[in-house]
Amino acid sequence: MNYNIVTEDVLARLREICGENNVLTDRKKTEAYSHDETPKDRYAAFPEAVVLPRTSEEVARIVRLANDRLIPLTPRGAGSGLSGGAIPCCGGIVVSLENMDRVVEIDTENMMMVVESGVITNSVNERLKEAGLFFAGYPMSLETCCIGGNIAENAGGGKAVKYGVTGRYVMGIEMVTPTGRIVELGGKRVKDVTGYDLKKLIVGSEGTLGIVTRATLKLLPRPTAQVALLVLFDSAESAISVVPKIMTDTGVIPTGIEFMDQLSVKTSCSYLNEHLPYRDCGAMLLIEIDGADDRQVEDDYMKTGEICEKNGALQVYVADNHTTRERVWAVRRSIAEAFMAVSPQQSLEDIVVPTASIAELIPELAKLSDKYDLQIPCYGHAGDGNLHATLVKNPAHGMEQWREIEACCLKDLYGAVRKLGGAISGEHGIGSKRKAYLKDAVSDVELELMKSIKKAFDPNNIMNPGKIFDMDHCSTEQNPDAFP
Amino acid sequence: MNYNIVTEDVLARLREICGENNVLTDRKKTEAYSHDETPKDRYAAFPEAVVLPRTSEEVARIVRLANDRLIPLTPRGAGSGLSGGAIPCCGGIVVSLENMDRVVEIDTENMMMVVESGVITNSVNERLKEAGLFFAGYPMSLETCCIGGNIAENAGGGKAVKYGVTGRYVMGIEMVTPTGRIVELGGKRVKDVTGYDLKKLIVGSEGTLGIVTRATLKLLPRPTAQVALLVLFDSAESAISVVPKIMTDTGVIPTGIEFMDQLSVKTSCSYLNEHLPYRDCGAMLLIEIDGADDRQVEDDYMKTGEICEKNGALQVYVADNHTTRERVWAVRRSIAEAFMAVSPQQSLEDIVVPTASIAELIPELAKLSDKYDLQIPCYGHAGDGNLHATLVKNPAHGMEQWREIEACCLKDLYGAVRKLGGAISGEHGIGSKRKAYLKDAVSDVELELMKSIKKAFDPNNIMNPGKIFDMDHCSTEQNPDAFP
Repeated sequence: MNYNIVTEDVLARLREICGENNVLTDRKKTEAYSHDETPKDRYAAFPEAVVLPRTSEEVARIVRLANDRLIPLTPRGAGSGLSGGAIPCCGGIVVSLENMDRVVEIDTENMMMVVESGVITNSVNERLKEAGLFFAGYPMSLETCCIGGNIAENAGGGKAVKYGVTGRYVMGIEMVTPTGRIVELGGKRVKDVTGYDLKKLIVGSEGTLGIVTRATLKLLPRPTAQVALLVLFDSAESAISVVPKIMTDTGVIPTGIEFMDQLSVKTSCSYLNEHLPYRDCGAMLLIEIDGADDRQVEDDYMKTGEICEKNGALQVYVADNHTTRERVWAVRRSIAEAFMAVSPQQSLEDIVVPTASIAELIPELAKLSDKYDLQIPCYGHAGDGNLHATLVKNPAHGMEQWREIEACCLKDLYGAVRKLGGAISGEHGIGSKRKAYLKDAVSDVELELMKSIKKAFDPNNIMNPGKIFDMDHCSTEQNPDAFP
Repeated sequence: MNYNIVTEDVLARLREICGENNVLTDRKKTEAYSHDETPKDRYAAFPEAVVLPRTSEEVARIVRLANDRLIPLTPRGAGSGLSGGAIPCCGGIVVSLENMDRVVEIDTENMMMVVESGVITNSVNERLKEAGLFFAGYPMSLETCCIGGNIAENAGGGKAVKYGVTGRYVMGIEMVTPTGRIVELGGKRVKDVTGYDLKKLIVGSEGTLGIVTRATLKLLPRPTAQVALLVLFDSAESAISVVPKIMTDTGVIPTGIEFMDQLSVKTSCSYLNEHLPYRDCGAMLLIEIDGADDRQVEDDYMKTGEICEKNGALQVYVADNHTTRERVWAVRRSIAEAFMAVSPQQSLEDIVVPTASIAELIPELAKLSDKYDLQIPCYGHAGDGNLHATLVKNPAHGMEQWREIEACCLKDLYGAVRKLGGAISGEHGIGSKRKAYLKDAVSDVELELMKSIKKAFDPNNIMNPGKIFDMDHCSTEQNPDAFP
């Protein structure tokens, strides 16, 4: 099966649906929709058109048109993804949800919120402050990413140790199916076993099973006490080995346990022009603890600090006011961006292993760094076993050599991860970036089951094709009209 | 498509796979597998054979045989279900997991546990006591139900307000697909977006997408402080209306908030010969609060008690020792059983609405009770909006009249629930009992998507057919050889 191109006739229909100004074809304008946060020269691809619908009905009409004409669609939120999920790698039409950014309802009685997909994650919590509620999702890109993207990737982030990932809070979804029908899944019900739980399947399906237009999010009472500990260690190994002990030996479940190696902290501090006095230690943990009671939070962080000190921590700093906490978190949140600025030739990874196995993973990274003669800074959500090891191109290597090294090194890395009972993506997704590696990461039977679901939902394979896996009956060659 | 019967040849193959003693055909023995906790005369059906495999490989061989021969399979745990899910309503073979009851591993470092499906829920926590950990599932049947059944139904229970339902703790699944292939989904990873999250789809799919043979469960540090409040009100309305306020006005998230109306408490107390002094009030809430810190739990229950008193509670009793807590919980847990003993002619419902809407539901129940001249006692997990309203046959009505009244009353009840944004099952499942009502409870598009997944997983419709919905291309008539 081959896709059709976006003809003048199709464009006219799109303009009819969305209005003249909400259909973009000019390359100056569509460039912004040709990439996400993965390296541009590697993964970017231009769409033939970008549409900016304002209602679910418009989305449905666009999808029906594309399905009739066999034109690929790529749903897109803020484009802050790290696996190429929002890039139109088969060409066709990008459906940007940016104009669908309304907060539809804040229901304090049910502690739920209904939002359109294009709402920025951070603004959700801004809107909830007054009500004393909060949405527990906390991806590192929260200042730019949107709820639809969180749902597509089942975003994790810095608070998942205690609060879990996005899916836990998605109680309802409004979605346009790949054949253009609007369906409501779930609602304001905290429990529901009325048939298969389709919303759980949609969360994390990377926009390949439909376009989520609206979500009902479960909220929690906003924690009134929050403390961040910055714990310094002489080495990555000693920092990492304390992580599972924090929970098993104290019974405390921190909000998050973030790990940063020396290179990551230094790079981010330089990028932000931040002068943390402790940037020269070997590695650090950023541990956040929150709750409804000051004394309880204090008890918890005291216990946590003690267990760190007992297990080789050089120093435990307590950040108990908003400004200091924000300074520390800004360093953590900016690492990916900082490395991208330093070297766009890199592969930001998202491996995840059982939490107790991350200590075994760190020496593997050192071995790979030696073997392939490149730097592999490492940081991430250690409390979840989810590490963003990043392969950075050695300036001494040429581009061709780097491509080869990257592929071999990833294969070795993923092999080591699998041996430890891990997986190749904890929160960034497979997208187009990791697609080639999926068949080694999951069993044939699992992959077949996934594909059978995709086929059942999207018989023409028009919905975000070329992501996660290729469908056997469809062509998903890289768009010849790729960037630049 | 018509199913084939279990011939002597098939029985010989089953004996070869499982051993002579693990294949049952004698009606005295298979009777126990012909029903669950739904009324026998209504839903029971005899299997042609029951098999008791001991390994996943044996399960896979049984499934391949049944798939080749087009014989329906019904996976079964403890048979404590309330929607007919484990009843072989199309005949064929019951696959009982009761012999697969091993605790495979307790991994304290990762706070995970690997168990076979036949492990009894309560015994999981018995085994974890020493490690200071616990599994947060708490279905009311925990003394008899097994983990496989919890997973099939995505069981809720008495601790879901704080801890959520079963699915939150299922990190990995080993399953035999309907075509007889063993597949591992997930593992000891707390985050994972490596392709579609199939394990989340399997949880709550009522054994229609495969037979779960093994599960990896996430554990939590065992709470060391626990208090139950028994709060008395003069009416169901006043008890129910305080429920959402507990969370929104205090910020406390109780472990569970259970509701029992007068009739439910009285019936259960008589059944247990329990003499609670407060059984004559109009309705009561059983509120459990737990945590890692005595003082915090005390603070929380004081706040909770106060908000109840401010909102019309007649009396707040504090049960802060294990024995008293157990006495109170035993009354709550035994209600279903007590009503079944009093009147087997009943329909135990499992409706769920947004938590703040349950106050609007209570008067609807009173109206229906008047309209159809029958008692509708009501109890359940009020903190989740999940109520077990139970239609009890009026002894003055004949059987035929009761059947008619039941159908009409359910239609009205489900209609009222839907109007409030609710659904027809919060934790018991659709099974065969509610199948006829599913098409009014979810949209056509949602139902089609569900069926398309079923077809993709189980092309021959041999896996627990006749549950949740009927497949258009398959006959799922009630087994003519039904009980008795």
